[in-house]
Amino acid sequence: MIIQLKEEITQKELKSLNEVLDEMNIDHYPVRTQNGQYQICTPKAEFDIRNIGHLDGIVDVHRVSGKHKMVSHKWKIDRSIIDIGDDVKMGDGHFELMAGPCSIESEEQIINTVECLKNNGVRIMRGGVYKPRTSPYSFRGLGMDGLKLFYKTCSENGIKIITEVMEAGQIEAMMPYVDIFQVGARNAQNFNLLEALGEVDKPVLIKRGISGSIDELLFSAEYIFKNGNEKIILCERGIRTFETSYRNTLDLNAIPILKEKSHLPVIVDPSHGIGIRKHVYQMTLAAVASGCDGILIEIHKTPNSAATDGQQTIDFKEFSRLTEKIKKMREIL
Amino acid sequence: MIIQLKEEITQKELKSLNEVLDEMNIDHYPVRTQNGQYQICTPKAEFDIRNIGHLDGIVDVHRVSGKHKMVSHKWKIDRSIIDIGDDVKMGDGHFELMAGPCSIESEEQIINTVECLKNNGVRIMRGGVYKPRTSPYSFRGLGMDGLKLFYKTCSENGIKIITEVMEAGQIEAMMPYVDIFQVGARNAQNFNLLEALGEVDKPVLIKRGISGSIDELLFSAEYIFKNGNEKIILCERGIRTFETSYRNTLDLNAIPILKEKSHLPVIVDPSHGIGIRKHVYQMTLAAVASGCDGILIEIHKTPNSAATDGQQTIDFKEFSRLTEKIKKMREIL
Amino acid sequence: MIIQLKEEITQKELKSLNEVLDEMNIDHYPVRTQNGQYQICTPKAEFDIRNIGHLDGIVDVHRVSGKHKMVSHKWKIDRSIIDIGDDVKMGDGHFELMAGPCSIESEEQIINTVECLKNNGVRIMRGGVYKPRTSPYSFRGLGMDGLKLFYKTCSENGIKIITEVMEAGQIEAMMPYVDIFQVGARNAQNFNLLEALGEVDKPVLIKRGISGSIDELLFSAEYIFKNGNEKIILCERGIRTFETSYRNTLDLNAIPILKEKSHLPVIVDPSHGIGIRKHVYQMTLAAVASGCDGILIEIHKTPNSAATDGQQTIDFKEFSRLTEKIKKMREIL
Amino acid sequence: MIIQLKEEITQKELKSLNEVLDEMNIDHYPVRTQNGQYQICTPKAEFDIRNIGHLDGIVDVHRVSGKHKMVSHKWKIDRSIIDIGDDVKMGDGHFELMAGPCSIESEEQIINTVECLKNNGVRIMRGGVYKPRTSPYSFRGLGMDGLKLFYKTCSENGIKIITEVMEAGQIEAMMPYVDIFQVGARNAQNFNLLEALGEVDKPVLIKRGISGSIDELLFSAEYIFKNGNEKIILCERGIRTFETSYRNTLDLNAIPILKEKSHLPVIVDPSHGIGIRKHVYQMTLAAVASGCDGILIEIHKTPNSAATDGQQTIDFKEFSRLTEKIKKMREIL
Repeated sequence: MIIQLKEEITQKELKSLNEVLDEMNIDHYPVRTQNGQYQICTPKAEFDIRNIGHLDGIVDVHRVSGKHKMVSHKWKIDRSIIDIGDDVKMGDGHFELMAGPCSIESEEQIINTVECLKNNGVRIMRGGVYKPRTSPYSFRGLGMDGLKLFYKTCSENGIKIITEVMEAGQIEAMMPYVDIFQVGARNAQNFNLLEALGEVDKPVLIKRGISGSIDELLFSAEYIFKNGNEKIILCERGIRTFETSYRNTLDLNAIPILKEKSHLPVIVDPSHGIGIRKHVYQMTLAAVASGCDGILIEIHKTPNSAATDGQQTIDFKEFSRLTEKIKKMREIL
Repeated sequence: MIIQLKEEITQKELKSLNEVLDEMNIDHYPVRTQNGQYQICTPKAEFDIRNIGHLDGIVDVHRVSGKHKMVSHKWKIDRSIIDIGDDVKMGDGHFELMAGPCSIESEEQIINTVECLKNNGVRIMRGGVYKPRTSPYSFRGLGMDGLKLFYKTCSENGIKIITEVMEAGQIEAMMPYVDIFQVGARNAQNFNLLEALGEVDKPVLIKRGISGSIDELLFSAEYIFKNGNEKIILCERGIRTFETSYRNTLDLNAIPILKEKSHLPVIVDPSHGIGIRKHVYQMTLAAVASGCDGILIEIHKTPNSAATDGQQTIDFKEFSRLTEKIKKMREIL
Repeated sequence: MIIQLKEEITQKELKSLNEVLDEMNIDHYPVRTQNGQYQICTPKAEFDIRNIGHLDGIVDVHRVSGKHKMVSHKWKIDRSIIDIGDDVKMGDGHFELMAGPCSIESEEQIINTVECLKNNGVRIMRGGVYKPRTSPYSFRGLGMDGLKLFYKTCSENGIKIITEVMEAGQIEAMMPYVDIFQVGARNAQNFNLLEALGEVDKPVLIKRGISGSIDELLFSAEYIFKNGNEKIILCERGIRTFETSYRNTLDLNAIPILKEKSHLPVIVDPSHGIGIRKHVYQMTLAAVASGCDGILIEIHKTPNSAATDGQQTIDFKEFSRLTEKIKKMREIL
Repeated sequence: MIIQLKEEITQKELKSLNEVLDEMNIDHYPVRTQNGQYQICTPKAEFDIRNIGHLDGIVDVHRVSGKHKMVSHKWKIDRSIIDIGDDVKMGDGHFELMAGPCSIESEEQIINTVECLKNNGVRIMRGGVYKPRTSPYSFRGLGMDGLKLFYKTCSENGIKIITEVMEAGQIEAMMPYVDIFQVGARNAQNFNLLEALGEVDKPVLIKRGISGSIDELLFSAEYIFKNGNEKIILCERGIRTFETSYRNTLDLNAIPILKEKSHLPVIVDPSHGIGIRKHVYQMTLAAVASGCDGILIEIHKTPNSAATDGQQTIDFKEFSRLTEKIKKMREIL
């Protein structure tokens, strides 16, 4: 059950509501986000909703069956739109491409990527400065220095930035330079990080875990929402299966399922989803056709010399060809 | 290595070739298909191809690295076109919809399905008369009686038939009534069945195993080809993973990968691929965008009353809406 | 529901029972096995069992909730014992080792294996003469000639034979030479083969499918039982997962689960279960400790020269060491 | 390549070594642990090891092929023994049981668990105070207050403590109260946490990720080792597969494989490994037989009233029965 509270609810009204819930032996969690104030209730048994609905200070009461609450489509019928600013939006018909290198490498690289994005009408650049790597002997990213370079060129060109955050301690320093915080697949159930991002007023894109279930992804989003941040984007990026012909198994089934279960925008990362450069084009089109709200894709001027993930990164020419095809496809969808 | 032989190769020339191969200690397998005559060689070590190329009776010799031979794109650069007759074709730009119920139930059902297909310009009807069922207490199909009913209406209306064959012993009786033999996911590695279908001059559609790898699917096709039948269609139908939000994980990555590895047409069964009726529409579009050569889909006048698989079967109205959208998508692809 | 019938039930009594069931709109399937005569009922709704229990010709009526019937532990509380003859038994405390090469190669090989088995007190020899192979270019086994050689030496030495059957058409010819028919992992859902084995009065060992669920394995056993053969042994042999450090993931969880769900004996194939020779010893002990009723293991005088599966085959010396350890472990379990 | 340095290596010698490595264009990482001082090198190409071996300040130079370095068995032939103090040890023949509730609930619960452990000769108690939970609405543990209670009773009774740490920020506060830090399956690739635990001189037990590969687990251990902590224990706890009859698929294959690849001790958590109370007994025995160096198991006086994981927790009586059987099994192994 979700109880939506009036913005002007008084302390007395709130106290009275809490007392009623306590009396009914209903666990409840106060939630205040950018958009509203709520009490999330997880009752253990059936109860009469009319005992609550008439109380002062309440806008509305929604029964939400199922395990997920704030992220559930059962509660919020309208699809959420995540507003990144300057008319860059995802969800409910708004579609965005997010493109760039796996890792930020140099100012030159940022400049040539931004130019490519602008030529193709793309408004968000991706690029990692903190890189989670399986081996401790791999390149780990340029860190804050890289992020500042990233910000400098992008802000001058009206390009938004999405980049990965790896732990709660990094959030504060990154904040001024980031438009969307990305949570990587390996951190999809790093609950301390998710809670910290719940306290931030910036959009958060959560990648599905390497073998994360759809339900777990929604619970991870619920962590962020419950801690106060409604600006959440879900990302399918391929799951781990028995098949070894490619890097991950892109699970496009997840797109309609996530959109059925949740009101949040759902985007696809086809680069990780197949992991093979020459097939990224085709899988991006499949992702668009599956009904996603955006694409997160790895591009590089010279993919073979990319610091990381070159084997799944397409070049600027292929990317231009792809953006045109996506436009055509979206017109008929 | 694949040695393509002249049609008019003499017994003497063939004997001489075999002797040379035996001397070189190269295992070789004679293959005669509808289209040609070959010796497939699986040499254990390096050898000089010039010792073979000059022999009489030979059209060409191809080195084919990798485990797959006759089905490999390395050997046959042109994409195969499977001709079902009356200008119904799949592969190399030819695209076909195959639609119909999971199980053939009655003449009335066949008639109303055929009418729906004709209204939508669809030329192949699917429908099972032998149903492999996990439980021995489930409906097993109408058998040959059902197939004869199926054939009667379809042949009168110029509709081709695809239906599943479960064991070698059924092939002969089914032969006059079938245009495409379907091998189900559970039989994808039933090698005796595959070999028997190699001896038939009818197209065979092989579904990927429930957890079949892409390599295994190609080996299953190789069994059919090696036994003399080149008319093979590969079908992605979803794989088994940890995710439980849907029936199977539709693996669209398999489409570009299979088309890269093999010259055979690749089609998709989105009904089994997600297993949830309301999402079949979206996943069909995703499949088309992934570059497949055809779609195999479950439709029924009243899906809720279908004998089998009703939960993943769409109705005729939804199917019409879908065929129109597919046409538009294929125009821009 | 399972209705156990009297052996001497009359045609009239049977007719009367069927009429009652038909009137109650209960689907029912007659089953006659080596041990008894039954009607398996799959009612669609609740009904009063007393309407049946009082009828003539009936021994007993059992409610069996759940999808599985004849193989279910809910119906048969006592554990089944599969008697292979000459006091060789599996189930309910009876434990047997089944050892031998992956493929029968020669008379000499059979003779040296039988000698090894006798030295270690082992009474069942495994060995394939029909080999299902992923590639059509691999060794396919010696067929009936090999089986006859296999039988000759074993029958002279009091050793029982277990070997794989690949299709229904092979059963009749194999019958005189086989003590246990093995159904391979790729045929675990080859329902035509399972039904044919239901009509045979010989024990059948079914391997779990490559990614077969526990429920599916039980349904495959149900096919055999329903067609008249109660002599069924279940075999865990490793499943397909994402892990690539070994051949299959041996799922020992399946042992207690299968023994909870079913009354049938459960054995383990550790050779396929890990697929790495040097670790077979350890995994065999783990399998024994998990509570299985037997072990199916690949051994060879010189594993490196085995025709198939050499990389997971142990030699005779390692096997002797292992049989001794197994004896000690079974004493304390 | 691993270069082991003398304890008394001078700054000048170190500088000289680094210069040689730089000249040879070999990436190198300095590592100082409780036991020694090393340079880990990841050369990109072949080189002559004699150019390094003769330098001053070096104990030894080891070529270590493969991706893992410090955790690899190729480097350290002797098996590592992790000493938890007071003669409590794991590895190289030393075996320990670690038992206790999933969550610390109360002082009374700690006291009765400690009593049970002492009765059974068990010297390490497990118990969570920070609980990673899929849902934000689940019980999250008693935190530091719970840990202090935990420590009070255990330290009075000579019982060691293992408990989970969820983020780097918790380490300092937990340090005085913890004998083994546990990294949970969801944090198995939380590299920031792993690095922070590398700077601590306390044993760390890393659980394999929910779908973590064996290679990834070793890389996670490498993160800890590289940052200075050699006291690492690896833990198999079941992986995610398609099977739904139990919670996780306990992968006992991983035990011999991990012991082959690494010198570190390997233990098993059978409670999570199957997730079903009545089968934990059998799977624990299987784990012991597979050759593991310890068992981490959930026990509770009244499992049905446990705050978390009750369904996979055994009671004290079952635990006593189990410890006795384990002793007998270990005697014959």
